[in-house]
Amino acid sequence: MTHFNRVLIANRGEIAVRIIRACKEMNIETVAVYSTADKDSLHAALADYAICIGTGSPKDSYLNLERIMSTAVTLGVDAIHPGYGFLSENSRFAKMCEECGIIFIGPDSDAILNMGNKSTARELMKSSGVPVIPGSDGLIHDMDQALVVAKEIGFPVIIKASMGGGGKGMRIVNTFEDLSRFIDQAKNEAQNAFGDSSIYIEKYITESRHVEFQILADKHGNTIHLFDRECSIQRNNQKMIEEAPSSYISDVMRKNMGDSAVLAAKAIDYNSAGTVEFLVDNDNNYYFIEMNTRIQVEHPTTEMVTGIDLIKEQIKIARGDKLTINQEDVIIRGHSIECRINAEDPDNHFAPSAGTITDLHLPGGNGVRVDTHLYPGYKIPVYYDSMLCKIICWGNDRSEAIQKMKVALDELVVSGIKTNTSLQKRILSHPDFLAGEFNTNFVNKIIG
Amino acid sequence: MTHFNRVLIANRGEIAVRIIRACKEMNIETVAVYSTADKDSLHAALADYAICIGTGSPKDSYLNLERIMSTAVTLGVDAIHPGYGFLSENSRFAKMCEECGIIFIGPDSDAILNMGNKSTARELMKSSGVPVIPGSDGLIHDMDQALVVAKEIGFPVIIKASMGGGGKGMRIVNTFEDLSRFIDQAKNEAQNAFGDSSIYIEKYITESRHVEFQILADKHGNTIHLFDRECSIQRNNQKMIEEAPSSYISDVMRKNMGDSAVLAAKAIDYNSAGTVEFLVDNDNNYYFIEMNTRIQVEHPTTEMVTGIDLIKEQIKIARGDKLTINQEDVIIRGHSIECRINAEDPDNHFAPSAGTITDLHLPGGNGVRVDTHLYPGYKIPVYYDSMLCKIICWGNDRSEAIQKMKVALDELVVSGIKTNTSLQKRILSHPDFLAGEFNTNFVNKIIG
Repeated sequence: MTHFNRVLIANRGEIAVRIIRACKEMNIETVAVYSTADKDSLHAALADYAICIGTGSPKDSYLNLERIMSTAVTLGVDAIHPGYGFLSENSRFAKMCEECGIIFIGPDSDAILNMGNKSTARELMKSSGVPVIPGSDGLIHDMDQALVVAKEIGFPVIIKASMGGGGKGMRIVNTFEDLSRFIDQAKNEAQNAFGDSSIYIEKYITESRHVEFQILADKHGNTIHLFDRECSIQRNNQKMIEEAPSSYISDVMRKNMGDSAVLAAKAIDYNSAGTVEFLVDNDNNYYFIEMNTRIQVEHPTTEMVTGIDLIKEQIKIARGDKLTINQEDVIIRGHSIECRINAEDPDNHFAPSAGTITDLHLPGGNGVRVDTHLYPGYKIPVYYDSMLCKIICWGNDRSEAIQKMKVALDELVVSGIKTNTSLQKRILSHPDFLAGEFNTNFVNKIIG
Repeated sequence: MTHFNRVLIANRGEIAVRIIRACKEMNIETVAVYSTADKDSLHAALADYAICIGTGSPKDSYLNLERIMSTAVTLGVDAIHPGYGFLSENSRFAKMCEECGIIFIGPDSDAILNMGNKSTARELMKSSGVPVIPGSDGLIHDMDQALVVAKEIGFPVIIKASMGGGGKGMRIVNTFEDLSRFIDQAKNEAQNAFGDSSIYIEKYITESRHVEFQILADKHGNTIHLFDRECSIQRNNQKMIEEAPSSYISDVMRKNMGDSAVLAAKAIDYNSAGTVEFLVDNDNNYYFIEMNTRIQVEHPTTEMVTGIDLIKEQIKIARGDKLTINQEDVIIRGHSIECRINAEDPDNHFAPSAGTITDLHLPGGNGVRVDTHLYPGYKIPVYYDSMLCKIICWGNDRSEAIQKMKVALDELVVSGIKTNTSLQKRILSHPDFLAGEFNTNFVNKIIG
């Protein structure tokens, strides 16, 4: 166990603010990096040091490994926290940190690499006894092999790129005719997007829920889970509302999925905070989808029901502390729900909304947490994610938490731009949502 | 059990905002009353209805029983929540509500009356087996009686007015000579201040801590406590920092004091939320001081460690619900601390600071709750309490909660007026405070 004197936060927005606060609470000096577009940003204002590393374009600043590393070395930081997005799952950056003797607050670069390759991850999980969706054993090399797999598992199937993400190189296939056509398309798209044409095939599950488990693992072989989050409320694969715990899974499923999540993390000698994502089908089968080897946007929902500070735990693990929490110590109290408030226009195909925030009133009080980088007069840069703030509400049960969120959203004022608040409210009042009867198609269905 | 459709909040500032939010979460319509000085206030803006009831002077508005009652009757409210201060411990107002068939969200008027007369309360507690400070049996009628009591309990003693509060009619006495002199002074002062010259005598305990217990009691005879709060950090008898739980008392003391608190509430057939205040001396004896028959400023500290919403519980009790929580269900998780941020100038004898708030940045994020009625541009009226906001922080232990509060206060920006933030920071960094070694004289000692 060693103390970090100074940590660089290689990120922006609310997560940078979140990490800076955690560092300050641990008496760690903070170094913010920022782009010229973010010169008036809250994360730069709150940090002990703030260094401009490039222009607004992410490539030039928050994705610029070399500049961030130079800043880290020049300022003599002990560690770098990558937040989420940007360089957080870049194994080359993690490796670079390892080589420069700066601690990457996240897992080893090998773990990132193993989980980054979806096909490798799938095989690793399968061989470790973690349920995976029926599909090809490893990569699909030719059409004959694809036909055999499709016959075996039955249509619909989905073609996925090994290095995939964001829907690129992905094809849903319903017939043998389409299969031959789409295989080549998918390979080409994967080659163009990721410089790697490897693909594999899985059974396509049309109606499913997204349930994930939060993992904490230290560098001494201790791995626990902090239970589950329900993340099925998504629009175009982007999570909008997350809850902890899931109201859908039974206690038996929770136990089994938690065990599988720990198994998954152990299979790759994982350390740090991480999330094992599962898909749950209508027959209550669950399957490993992927593991996010970083902190997630929705981590506060878990913090609110467990009382465990995930960012502090990440930092403690990175500096070599042993976990002080055993699996039995993790107790869920009540229910929490998070709404992501984005700068986008629900009446205009969710086009990103740029501009300056004129009036701002954030909800607050009992059981309401707001994680944001906003302030009145803040000008939203065009370069980055549209998320403005996360509102997280806690209640003794799901219904109280939802009710609290409704009141919080009614109170929220963000003037000068368009936001998705009206859609969030619509979801929160929908009888199917209230009854817990929804899957990942829910939002797309109600917005038509 | 009946549903409230509409509730009037007979208060202003952060507590009115707090109560309005709780009502909205319970689907109860809210009626705010406000003075002309508060026409741009947040509580008036957030409520479903907002009615102006008079000029800025409290007597004309928030203390004006008749106007508030007319508003309540005219708007057909089912109940009135009095908050704290103003009419919250006015038995005549509670009685008036009872007579008008409007539910007073608080105890019966008799309970307020019994606890409002300090001498009566003392005798009631004594006869119920709740420890009280050694002193006179009932009122002191003449000098001879005073001399006998003083001889028996020993100097220093304190003369107190039965109807007292705020230090009026109070005298600390060290010698027999002073006793005869101060008795008449105290009687006169009490007569002038409260229209009642009754006084009694207690042993004066020079070094003590203020530890209080939160009570919840329903109208069906169920009474529980929600454990303790440490409130010894005071300046001139005004609490500045409160914590839950107290770091001073042992588990055995906690058990005994909790039992005494429940006994105290039962002795007066109490219902609603209430607080039993104890004084703890250097030998770990505890004595009943008084019972506050209302919600308190520091109630969020208890909410953060128990997960129980005290305002909602008050409302549920008032409408006749049975408590759904048993004593065994009340479990403390972690530690919480509250700092009261006041508009006052620590460099100028804490003179109230009026003015307009230009810049405002409130801290937030994990484990940080802010209860406030502030917004950028808010003009502080001169008529009311100087409290601007309450910051409440939660941590796994006391040290984490304090550290979180330090970071939160560092982040707080309230420009345009003077605040006591610097003094709060000084206290939070003081080695004696950190070690938990302080009593009610602590603040006055460090500010010299």
